[in-house]
Amino acid sequence: MGLILIEYENFLLEKREMVDRELESFFNFKMEGCRDQISRDIVGRIRDFTMNGGKRVRPILTIAGYNLFSKFDQRIVKASISIELTQSYLLIHDDVMDQSDVRRGKPSFHASLRESLPENTYDRKRLSENLAIVAGDLADSYANEAIARSGFGHRETLITTDLLAEIVEYTGYGQLLDINSAMDDGFSQRDLMRLHLWKTAKYTIEGPLMMGAILSGTEKNLQSLSYYGYLLGLAFQLQDDVLGLYGDEKTIGKSVKNDVNEGKKTLLMIKAIEFSPDDAEFIKMCLNNGNINDEDFQRLKDIVKSSGSYDYSIKTMKKLVEKSKSYLETVDGDSETKNFLRWFADYIITRKN
Amino acid sequence: MGLILIEYENFLLEKREMVDRELESFFNFKMEGCRDQISRDIVGRIRDFTMNGGKRVRPILTIAGYNLFSKFDQRIVKASISIELTQSYLLIHDDVMDQSDVRRGKPSFHASLRESLPENTYDRKRLSENLAIVAGDLADSYANEAIARSGFGHRETLITTDLLAEIVEYTGYGQLLDINSAMDDGFSQRDLMRLHLWKTAKYTIEGPLMMGAILSGTEKNLQSLSYYGYLLGLAFQLQDDVLGLYGDEKTIGKSVKNDVNEGKKTLLMIKAIEFSPDDAEFIKMCLNNGNINDEDFQRLKDIVKSSGSYDYSIKTMKKLVEKSKSYLETVDGDSETKNFLRWFADYIITRKN
Repeated sequence: MGLILIEYENFLLEKREMVDRELESFFNFKMEGCRDQISRDIVGRIRDFTMNGGKRVRPILTIAGYNLFSKFDQRIVKASISIELTQSYLLIHDDVMDQSDVRRGKPSFHASLRESLPENTYDRKRLSENLAIVAGDLADSYANEAIARSGFGHRETLITTDLLAEIVEYTGYGQLLDINSAMDDGFSQRDLMRLHLWKTAKYTIEGPLMMGAILSGTEKNLQSLSYYGYLLGLAFQLQDDVLGLYGDEKTIGKSVKNDVNEGKKTLLMIKAIEFSPDDAEFIKMCLNNGNINDEDFQRLKDIVKSSGSYDYSIKTMKKLVEKSKSYLETVDGDSETKNFLRWFADYIITRKN
Repeated sequence: MGLILIEYENFLLEKREMVDRELESFFNFKMEGCRDQISRDIVGRIRDFTMNGGKRVRPILTIAGYNLFSKFDQRIVKASISIELTQSYLLIHDDVMDQSDVRRGKPSFHASLRESLPENTYDRKRLSENLAIVAGDLADSYANEAIARSGFGHRETLITTDLLAEIVEYTGYGQLLDINSAMDDGFSQRDLMRLHLWKTAKYTIEGPLMMGAILSGTEKNLQSLSYYGYLLGLAFQLQDDVLGLYGDEKTIGKSVKNDVNEGKKTLLMIKAIEFSPDDAEFIKMCLNNGNINDEDFQRLKDIVKSSGSYDYSIKTMKKLVEKSKSYLETVDGDSETKNFLRWFADYIITRKN
């Protein structure tokens, strides 16, 4: 097991380096085309933002989805960066919306930009946020171009382009639900699952996998692969929520208080309220506080554990992973890649960041 | 001449109605697919924003570009709404960036949303702007889907999708130049022309025309048509600037002081500064003022006329239109559509809104 682990972690690292090299070369090309200082500066910043960290889970899944049905080929790396550019697009906009100055442990796009503007710049805050909105929109165009120019057949490429638009569309609906959730007291587990399906499962796992599968040109039925992606995506989100509360701040690159301070109604919170009605008021108070103190935070974490909510999330996660793997078994594809995807399903809920 | 005018204006109206019907049906389909209240509400607002006015110049040009090389066909109407959805995407983001509460004489997207939220909503302003950013991103996905699902061949559709991404990309660079222009004292006529080429000419005229031409599947050389579009697009922007200063507020749907208050360095301003150096300080003061009074505004308009800057813009516009028409002559396409495009070139610089 130890050896297999190392083998697949090396696989992840190797693919990640491929994706990084392709991203570098894409941005170099874009930078060379810039005709003026401001464009060059902003495109350079989109490059730095994109290159700074990121586990490249999405493009690696696109490559894996392709490898299930077709031999490896450099074109899939070219296409795979598309979803990573989409990621930059959405994260840059997200940070403006959340007014978040930190991303992956470093200044967010607009925060870094704001600090680089002369102090006497008129409305520096607004200006940097505006430039960030345009930068996000640019990254989105890049994402579309990366697929369109990857060199695959017209039919496959077109379907994939359309799928990417649909992924971004559903991420948008997820965003709306997410923004609304903070205002909506009746926000239920069902709403939450839909939010996760759209904002995480489709966007992070199912969509990227399917993009790769479609680009392979396979005529095989992709329904089981799609289920694998959706179920694993839900598990991915639950693990994110667990790490967001109990993870190591240095490893996850953000404060463990963030989710609570943002008032996120995670499954951990919803179930703690349900399982421990006496603590419901306290939990809601914590979520509405915006700046929780150490003592309350510790008490909140204790309640989530003692109420059984933590165990519920862990159990749900494990069930989702088992179910997703059982769908994977019925996929008629390359056995080596299936081995990787099987390992990857376990990795998703054991990862530390 | 009178008859021709009416004929082509009717043509514009007829095509506009087709585009509107297609947009309505697209949004109905999207609304039906919404699973929750917040998505339904936001998609309904994107629909209302899109349906509220708009001359549909861009989709009409896409239809004309198609008709140059192919008989009319409902699929081109389906594809043409794509650029109008892109327009909604960019305008919604624009109004957030400009913090503008008015668009087409009505509340802008985020302003209307803000007013509909309960007064005691936490940070109503931010919330409505965030929802507007997501709404813009959604409209962008719709734009990509509208082309992908219009029913044309894979090859043509894919090239058009890529072209749309490129149009939006260059609009982004234009935006960056635009944002930068307000801060840049050395902003020159050359910078301005590049800004107009990207932000207006490609996006409003050349791009939409080329999208239609490409969808027709023609193998003919499209270079002359592209030049027609770019030159006419520059003229379109100059006429916009003239209307922005001397137009009728009711007809143009915004205050004639807007451009000045936004500090826009239009060709009218750049040339007035150049032709009348004694007034340069006054003009710069007006552009930096942010809230010009009636007296200064009248004096500014007088200077633009007396300095010869106004005539310079008009002359430049006319030259651009003549040049664009001469390129049109060399396009080997349907003669009826060419007649329309010839008329349209003159219409662009005589229009009142």
